[in-house]
Amino acid sequence: MPDPATMADALRSEMVRVQKEIDRAFDATLPVPDDSRRPLVEAMRHATIGGGKRLRPLLLIETARILGVDRDCAIRAACALEAIHAYSLIHDDLPCMDDDAMRHGKPSVHKAFGEATAVLAGDALQTYAFALLADHQATGDSFVRIELVRCLARAAGHQGMAGGQMMDMAAEGATLGLPTITRMQQRKTGALLEAAVEMGAILGHLPDEGRLHLRGYAHDIGLAFQIADDLLDAQGDAQLAGKTLRKDDAAGKQTFLTLLGAERAREQATMLADQAVGHLAHYGKEADMLRALARFIVEREY
Amino acid sequence: MPDPATMADALRSEMVRVQKEIDRAFDATLPVPDDSRRPLVEAMRHATIGGGKRLRPLLLIETARILGVDRDCAIRAACALEAIHAYSLIHDDLPCMDDDAMRHGKPSVHKAFGEATAVLAGDALQTYAFALLADHQATGDSFVRIELVRCLARAAGHQGMAGGQMMDMAAEGATLGLPTITRMQQRKTGALLEAAVEMGAILGHLPDEGRLHLRGYAHDIGLAFQIADDLLDAQGDAQLAGKTLRKDDAAGKQTFLTLLGAERAREQATMLADQAVGHLAHYGKEADMLRALARFIVEREY
Repeated sequence: MPDPATMADALRSEMVRVQKEIDRAFDATLPVPDDSRRPLVEAMRHATIGGGKRLRPLLLIETARILGVDRDCAIRAACALEAIHAYSLIHDDLPCMDDDAMRHGKPSVHKAFGEATAVLAGDALQTYAFALLADHQATGDSFVRIELVRCLARAAGHQGMAGGQMMDMAAEGATLGLPTITRMQQRKTGALLEAAVEMGAILGHLPDEGRLHLRGYAHDIGLAFQIADDLLDAQGDAQLAGKTLRKDDAAGKQTFLTLLGAERAREQATMLADQAVGHLAHYGKEADMLRALARFIVEREY
Repeated sequence: MPDPATMADALRSEMVRVQKEIDRAFDATLPVPDDSRRPLVEAMRHATIGGGKRLRPLLLIETARILGVDRDCAIRAACALEAIHAYSLIHDDLPCMDDDAMRHGKPSVHKAFGEATAVLAGDALQTYAFALLADHQATGDSFVRIELVRCLARAAGHQGMAGGQMMDMAAEGATLGLPTITRMQQRKTGALLEAAVEMGAILGHLPDEGRLHLRGYAHDIGLAFQIADDLLDAQGDAQLAGKTLRKDDAAGKQTFLTLLGAERAREQATMLADQAVGHLAHYGKEADMLRALARFIVEREY
């Protein structure tokens, strides 16, 4: 096992590399048209280029790398996944949702482009995600492409992310227990994080029975991520986060933090990261980056 | 050539049949969950079940029928297409867009479920469209499935419908010529109508060179549909239409009507319908329903 500090450094460089690759891929596939659709595409670019940790792309690309997938294929699929994430942030920030003015240290899309264009840019980014996956350039294998679409649609729709968002909206003012909060978060953020690993496995032609360990890993870091997010919302630095914090408290929302208290929540997150790493036991050092990522997810300050 | 009145009757029965089939398919594939996601799925059902002419499904199903496609496969693909159309109507009706209270003779989704749920229901309906196409049940052929996704995503995204919607928003208050209005409408409504025929052709394994006539037909009825829509907006009966009319006039928008005048606009629509029928010359009576549909599109009163 390499030194944790060395691995954290390696992870940081890899994150920067992936951030650049994803920026470049969005830039290349979202050219600004020379007609009145310009504000729409500019809004889509605002939401996708130059911001975000790119955790989902990193997870997908790392899983795919372990399985020997061509990097360009993985980057393209990662862009599709990140486009879904980006569309959900645009719509979450809308005045009728969280009404948030800042995202990734920049004005949110409706602040920069107006509300109607923001609705439309979110819509078009979702479509673009599926267009990217369906394109022949994604990978020559049409079965792989349709499985990627199927996985991403399942994770993003009313059975996944959008369903979780609805549960979250319905939860305002309600008294919920830990199982309900866990189910809601599993959909709201867990589903896309799990899809990241699953899409890497699909690209790598990993048969279903070979995906169990990776799914266990993804499930655990998904939950750990959310607990860490609740802690950051309560204790983090808005400057570093590039978005408004203390929102849960202001909305009187129940979170892992309000249910467990800060200390137990942090313990729980660390335990989940350990458990996630445990799922990778039968992988060698090729999975070190995924291990470091599990640590990063609970130790991050942004 | 059968008597036009007989064909119009046959078309009416076929429309009712398709309306029932599409309603049934949405009902079966969108069960209401027994948890707090309930309002989301109810809003999705409100927007998709029991309303609308189902023109796009009819076009898809008729094209597929001519090519010998299994009807259930065609219905499933038609539901995906209609889900995209339905999502676009939910978002178009939002207060920040057209702010419309009525749709298909019912309260629009944000009126019935609130604005946040309406945004989310539109989002989830779009995802659901791609999930439907990606599912193994859509058709066993993964190449056909991914081509359906590709076609629908291209038609719906920033290069198609969403791009046209942006052009429409940008056009408010501007002075546009006929070519610009035509380009905008070709994206805004034409793209999905063309996708209906194209998806039928994909399901029917029709090679690219065999699609030219059908594409010509789709292109012409797309434009004819929009001109007829402008005429209905100005002269139609809101009760029959089930939605607010005179919106273009109220918004001071330029349309085919303001540019051409009512008489020339009606002539142009009729000419386009004739031209559309002309594209079907090398089909026999199996295409009579598509011919009747071209007539219906310009003669309809709702």
